[in-house]
Amino acid sequence: MDKQQLIDCHQRIKPFIHDTPVLNSRLINKMGNASFYFKCENFQRMGAFKMRGAANAILQLTDEQKQNGVVTHSSGNFAQALSLAAQSLGVKAHIVMPKSAPEVKKEAVRGYGGILTECESTLHAREQATERIIEKHGTTFIHPSNDDQVILGQGTACMELLELYPDLDYVFTPVGGGGLIAGTALAAHYFGKNCKTIGGEPFEVDDAYRSLQSGKIEINASTNTVADGLKTQLGDKNFPIIQKHVEEIVRVSEQEIVSSMRIIWERLKIVCEPSSAVALAACFNKKELLSGKKVGIIISGGNVDLSKLPY
Amino acid sequence: MDKQQLIDCHQRIKPFIHDTPVLNSRLINKMGNASFYFKCENFQRMGAFKMRGAANAILQLTDEQKQNGVVTHSSGNFAQALSLAAQSLGVKAHIVMPKSAPEVKKEAVRGYGGILTECESTLHAREQATERIIEKHGTTFIHPSNDDQVILGQGTACMELLELYPDLDYVFTPVGGGGLIAGTALAAHYFGKNCKTIGGEPFEVDDAYRSLQSGKIEINASTNTVADGLKTQLGDKNFPIIQKHVEEIVRVSEQEIVSSMRIIWERLKIVCEPSSAVALAACFNKKELLSGKKVGIIISGGNVDLSKLPY
Repeated sequence: MDKQQLIDCHQRIKPFIHDTPVLNSRLINKMGNASFYFKCENFQRMGAFKMRGAANAILQLTDEQKQNGVVTHSSGNFAQALSLAAQSLGVKAHIVMPKSAPEVKKEAVRGYGGILTECESTLHAREQATERIIEKHGTTFIHPSNDDQVILGQGTACMELLELYPDLDYVFTPVGGGGLIAGTALAAHYFGKNCKTIGGEPFEVDDAYRSLQSGKIEINASTNTVADGLKTQLGDKNFPIIQKHVEEIVRVSEQEIVSSMRIIWERLKIVCEPSSAVALAACFNKKELLSGKKVGIIISGGNVDLSKLPY
Repeated sequence: MDKQQLIDCHQRIKPFIHDTPVLNSRLINKMGNASFYFKCENFQRMGAFKMRGAANAILQLTDEQKQNGVVTHSSGNFAQALSLAAQSLGVKAHIVMPKSAPEVKKEAVRGYGGILTECESTLHAREQATERIIEKHGTTFIHPSNDDQVILGQGTACMELLELYPDLDYVFTPVGGGGLIAGTALAAHYFGKNCKTIGGEPFEVDDAYRSLQSGKIEINASTNTVADGLKTQLGDKNFPIIQKHVEEIVRVSEQEIVSSMRIIWERLKIVCEPSSAVALAACFNKKELLSGKKVGIIISGGNVDLSKLPY
């Protein structure tokens, strides 16, 4: 994917997304011994960066494809993002979600006009349900992270950050399915001045870390992390980009995630997801490398259940 | 106090404060049937609007007064604000606080360079401790809310809001000691186009509501509210301004405060104090009046103890 594709993508999705604010905190700078610029995608429409990729993927469909709608399987932010992006564009969005998903997530999808199909919580049931929808309606499947158009869309957050702060030395993102970090790494490569991309990943779901080591996509045996947005796996579209353009993946403990999340809430006064805090936790683990540097951090989202906080 | 005094005050404090962002949410607009503009003073330095008044009060001192330092009694945001404003200006700030105040508040004051004097938690002990400091050091007493320079400073948040949105129909603030609402009402009067100021106040500490009814400053017999920033009383400097320029005080229940706070956290993705939510709760109680109108809301601050949330 080239520079022009990112520029076109940004132009295309602009009317459907917020150019989110960038915040910082003297105290966090002092703690990390660097200047941090937090790109607040928790303030994005529907509360996460996923809106960018979802909007771009739908906007790239042909008129006939738009007519037949889109489908994805997700119980996270991408389900809401695809629903809202589709609604904004007058397109139908089918969302396949396990019956066992929290009622609040199902409600959110319905609230954004998504058509919910519930299934058993196995990979097989999920794929079958998706297949049936595609056969019946001729809908286009859009993967939450392993899709070129989605990756381009997610990269636009970093483009906006670099427009404001062109001389960032590093940009940190959390790593889940790999869409955000792949898009970010492309944006940093094309629009930064030697700006390096580093990912933060929980030790508990360190598939990206291990994949970069082994050179092939590794699987997580378990996904026991508070960062529930990061339980997903890399894919064949985003992994090559990550291999080529990501400097390093830094693993962090569950305790580091929660304490970094608390620092963000207390100091930036914003509500972010545990996944977002993984990026800051990674920065705190790289203090020597970052000393005196300018560091962008993508705060990925802010959809949390306030009655289930880890504090 | 006149228009020019507000303009001068704003110019004076600008280097020491943030011009905080204004956020909004389509969903909250839909819930309240109006267009809401949230002026986010939780993003202010030290986390609350109090920084504005504290900075202005210190900046108005003579050189000799600055030499001798300032003193206040507060266990809330003003203690931190005066400490940080004084530190920024190279002035000593003495803070009188009851021994029983939470350790985290004492730490915050010390962190901003304030000189802490602890006393028993009676009005008498507090006043005595303050007197002793004034006698010993010749310090100038600065009241957290009943001080003309503090009132002017607090008004600058509304000035900034009206610079961005000059045609607001209403501006809502919480009412505690009366400094914020008095300053806001002056700003709305001088800089708005028929912009009316309305206060939100918990039923549990409705001294301002009763004072406006009776025409004299009323006292709270008890202060049993989650909005801990609003337990203070009106004073003789701000009450006449409130009488002249505030349209109405709207009382809200504790349940309404907590549910409005949750809406702000979940929809705006920001961390605000219960006190801030009182203003939105008041708006929800005036839906008919506000229907289709443009409504500013001052989010007063974001200093909350995350381990003691009401959700």
